[in-house]
Amino acid sequence: MKIYRVNMTEGKVTTEDVKQDYVALGGRGLTSQIIADEVDPTCNPIGAKNKLVIAPGLLSGTNAPSSGRLSVGTKSPLTGTIKESNAGGTAAQKLAKLNVKAIVVEGKPEDNKFYTMTVNKDGIKLEDVSDNLLGKGNYEVMEKVQEELGEDVCVMSIGQAGEYKLQSASIAVSDPEGRPTRHCGRGGTGAVMGSKGLKTIVIDDTDAPGVSIVDKDKFKKSARGLAKALLDHPVCGEGLPEYGTSILINILNESGGLPTKNFRTGRFEGADKISGETIADVIKERGGQTAHVCHPGCVMRCSQIYNDKDGNYLTGGFEYETVWGFGANSEIDDIDAIAMMDRICDDIGVDTIEMSTTIAVAMEAGIIEFGDAEGAIDLLKQIGEGTPLGRIIGNGTGFTGKAFGLTRVPVVKNQSIPAYDPRAVKGVAVTYATSTMGADHTAGYAVTANILGIGGDVDPLSKEGQVALSRDLQIATAAVDSTGLCVFAAFAILDNEVALPAVVDMLNAQYGIELVADDVTKLGESILKAERDFNVRAGFDNSDDRLPDFFLEEECSPHNVKFDITDEELDEVYNF
Amino acid sequence: MKIYRVNMTEGKVTTEDVKQDYVALGGRGLTSQIIADEVDPTCNPIGAKNKLVIAPGLLSGTNAPSSGRLSVGTKSPLTGTIKESNAGGTAAQKLAKLNVKAIVVEGKPEDNKFYTMTVNKDGIKLEDVSDNLLGKGNYEVMEKVQEELGEDVCVMSIGQAGEYKLQSASIAVSDPEGRPTRHCGRGGTGAVMGSKGLKTIVIDDTDAPGVSIVDKDKFKKSARGLAKALLDHPVCGEGLPEYGTSILINILNESGGLPTKNFRTGRFEGADKISGETIADVIKERGGQTAHVCHPGCVMRCSQIYNDKDGNYLTGGFEYETVWGFGANSEIDDIDAIAMMDRICDDIGVDTIEMSTTIAVAMEAGIIEFGDAEGAIDLLKQIGEGTPLGRIIGNGTGFTGKAFGLTRVPVVKNQSIPAYDPRAVKGVAVTYATSTMGADHTAGYAVTANILGIGGDVDPLSKEGQVALSRDLQIATAAVDSTGLCVFAAFAILDNEVALPAVVDMLNAQYGIELVADDVTKLGESILKAERDFNVRAGFDNSDDRLPDFFLEEECSPHNVKFDITDEELDEVYNF
Repeated sequence: MKIYRVNMTEGKVTTEDVKQDYVALGGRGLTSQIIADEVDPTCNPIGAKNKLVIAPGLLSGTNAPSSGRLSVGTKSPLTGTIKESNAGGTAAQKLAKLNVKAIVVEGKPEDNKFYTMTVNKDGIKLEDVSDNLLGKGNYEVMEKVQEELGEDVCVMSIGQAGEYKLQSASIAVSDPEGRPTRHCGRGGTGAVMGSKGLKTIVIDDTDAPGVSIVDKDKFKKSARGLAKALLDHPVCGEGLPEYGTSILINILNESGGLPTKNFRTGRFEGADKISGETIADVIKERGGQTAHVCHPGCVMRCSQIYNDKDGNYLTGGFEYETVWGFGANSEIDDIDAIAMMDRICDDIGVDTIEMSTTIAVAMEAGIIEFGDAEGAIDLLKQIGEGTPLGRIIGNGTGFTGKAFGLTRVPVVKNQSIPAYDPRAVKGVAVTYATSTMGADHTAGYAVTANILGIGGDVDPLSKEGQVALSRDLQIATAAVDSTGLCVFAAFAILDNEVALPAVVDMLNAQYGIELVADDVTKLGESILKAERDFNVRAGFDNSDDRLPDFFLEEECSPHNVKFDITDEELDEVYNF
Repeated sequence: MKIYRVNMTEGKVTTEDVKQDYVALGGRGLTSQIIADEVDPTCNPIGAKNKLVIAPGLLSGTNAPSSGRLSVGTKSPLTGTIKESNAGGTAAQKLAKLNVKAIVVEGKPEDNKFYTMTVNKDGIKLEDVSDNLLGKGNYEVMEKVQEELGEDVCVMSIGQAGEYKLQSASIAVSDPEGRPTRHCGRGGTGAVMGSKGLKTIVIDDTDAPGVSIVDKDKFKKSARGLAKALLDHPVCGEGLPEYGTSILINILNESGGLPTKNFRTGRFEGADKISGETIADVIKERGGQTAHVCHPGCVMRCSQIYNDKDGNYLTGGFEYETVWGFGANSEIDDIDAIAMMDRICDDIGVDTIEMSTTIAVAMEAGIIEFGDAEGAIDLLKQIGEGTPLGRIIGNGTGFTGKAFGLTRVPVVKNQSIPAYDPRAVKGVAVTYATSTMGADHTAGYAVTANILGIGGDVDPLSKEGQVALSRDLQIATAAVDSTGLCVFAAFAILDNEVALPAVVDMLNAQYGIELVADDVTKLGESILKAERDFNVRAGFDNSDDRLPDFFLEEECSPHNVKFDITDEELDEVYNF
């Protein structure tokens, strides 16, 4: 394994051995540690001093099920905190097979040009693509690259939003069909990539050496054990492949935690029209695909391919949070329009969560009416066009709230709050408030015990037990995000006692080490501490771990609950 | 004396006695202490929890020369720090004569209506003006109010920018001619006033009781002593009345510290065309007025009335920083165009410093070309029109930099750096970095000893002695800002040993107390500490007391100097 260091100021690539401290780290554990070790926490995120670190997980590139997740780390332009943004697609597996532990992108070209970085068995090279790829959306970029280099390469790219260095810009990662449906979405990683003058990263694993495994038999057995645990789980093995993540629309609506009309209520009248069940029906009718994988070897297969009315491909990676945000939260119940918004975001390269909450805030500001699907599509298109309004929208929810002088703006650390109302799903609200990443449901997905009955049962409307639940999940998630496993694998880990030992055994078998289950907790804790320490050095303190006032002041129907977990209770999350 | 508390949520006014702790405070000392005591430092600046405190200085309303400055305090929407924004005009004297120690505006109307607050001898009343004044610029607003209530009332008002709650929105204060040429400019106080639903504050001192003075003879004698010290001073008594503050254009250009083309160099080719000498000639030619007072009783008379080519009034309160920012820093050498920009800013109600640095950043982004006066005028007009681009510009320099993905953005704590290059005038750069207010030259105007030879001589290009110089000036300024005296009075205090005792004697004579000169320092220190403590509680720390990287990395010609005062040295400012 090796670490590539790519200096964009000088256009120079160097190769480094993996230092001892980093050997046992992968994915988020590695990206966060390198950022914490090397980046000045007070630097300008789009300046030369920031770095972009790309790392596959510890198990990526192996046959471990659902282990192809990629981590991208940086100091976030959106939040100012450390950031790990996690995506599926084919990059992680290819990088791991090329024995790339991490790529560290540094500096900033002084010529304002844009480059492509090609990673293959011979190393890394940079090439100026200012003339042929600049200004193009991710769909066209990926097509062009694949026309030239074949369909098997993986492409990571930024759309126009990343070129403009907008704070919600994502990095697209091509899915198994070579489409830009998978994104390091949150926190503006695409703006950092843009600031480095990188339009694309092309990963070609032809003749790659592959991942070496110390004890292959043990590995295979453990991998099978995890696969079975995943397939046996009602959510991982049935709900997700059947309906995709949008299965959550009806569940959250029923629970009264589906934020509607910019977080005014917890139920949406049009929920049925945008539910996972409806989407699955539409997909089947039109010859699309449910149970699609975001990366080869995923057994949960929650991805989907969504066709338009004429049966032609429209979008993929069409997730619950996207459907919620452009749907319920914007009071739009036209699922085709929402699918179009998803496609536009994928193409321009912006985070669908941040964009959908921003659209709702633009509606709150009166720019367009709630429910205006055509207006929302127009606003999203303006991001790619670089109009002033597009730049406001593309800089996210907090920025748009400031542009229009609003106070009902759902952000924590300037990152928008996703698809679970903080008042009606209080466990995930603790995660929103305290995560090292700004508001982020995946950082400690307490929807599990609050709503899904996974890993126990905690009353979502009560504050009882929520801090401990969020803390434990945040620790576990930091560890899972280091393995390359999809965060949904945690569902099986929480409910099936076979799953965690299987993960530990795979790590031991692959690396010839002797971890025990407790080491996973220790790893998670040490990652969170490194991230939190970075944020403290960047100037953050407990007073940043708070929800916006309106969640404490306005009741959320139908349960008429406010957020009532105190500041002191929130500050207990980091007592470990 | 009394304190009025105006609750805008309930539309209720209450009157309070001045509590013992506040008796010896006025101006900035009082506004900052009330904000520190009453406002949650982490609150949303445009939310109901923030407050707006208006206070005349300790000497305002008396015959003390140049003592009519007003302080407005709040948590700043622009910086997130505590803020005192200081203006001339006739408000402070009238409030003091009405025996108003302070007005504390709280809450936020729930009906989104806009009100006028009338302050007179009978108290305070609120009236809905949503139908007649909303959407109008400050010139029209002041005219309308004076048509109704007479020319002698003072009007404080917000333009469209304050209604939109833009972060550079100012509060206009009418000058002796009743025009909106005086502004609490910096930090977005106008957005807070707008968020409180206040369009205007009308102050009518008809039949006011006036300021009571314990020892009138002693007061008169000391006032004469200060007046003489001011008139004897070459800057206060000659330079300022003759040429206005723009006398600094040639001085700074000569010294190589006149930031040009968004802080690229320290000299502007077109300096002569926009110099104070040129402006004074133009004013005289066209029948305008030099040596104008911003408030009655000022002996320095640095204000001016600037007429257009046809001899009609164009603008007033046309200051050095405005001329610099729209001029040299934007590479515009057309003084009439710059005067038009000043007028537009006064009318829409935005800070001319923040706006002029924002225009230069918009030029850096390529929105318009450097030197494009017509383009700049159009951008400013768009603020009033509320276009998306206008909202970007109106939210200031940092916001505009983020909208367009730039890194050469001259701000500290998100407030823009004014008219003295930090590399070539290092003393004032220490103030920019460390002031409790964000980048602010008036908070510790080290241009004195660095450039003007006032209060000593400190090499502006060397870091030697700059921290101590800035610290001493920041302390002294906090005290001066509490008296209602113009900050320029400090020039005489620094150079003439009669001046400070005269100020102390006036305070003693007015209030029947026994201060000594050391108490002035103690007052200044305690104000800075209260402000700094507020900022710490708001989440600020030493790492926020920094200049943008480009001042440390790029040399400023003609002296080819970088900013080289270390972080550790900057952190010494608060060691007192």
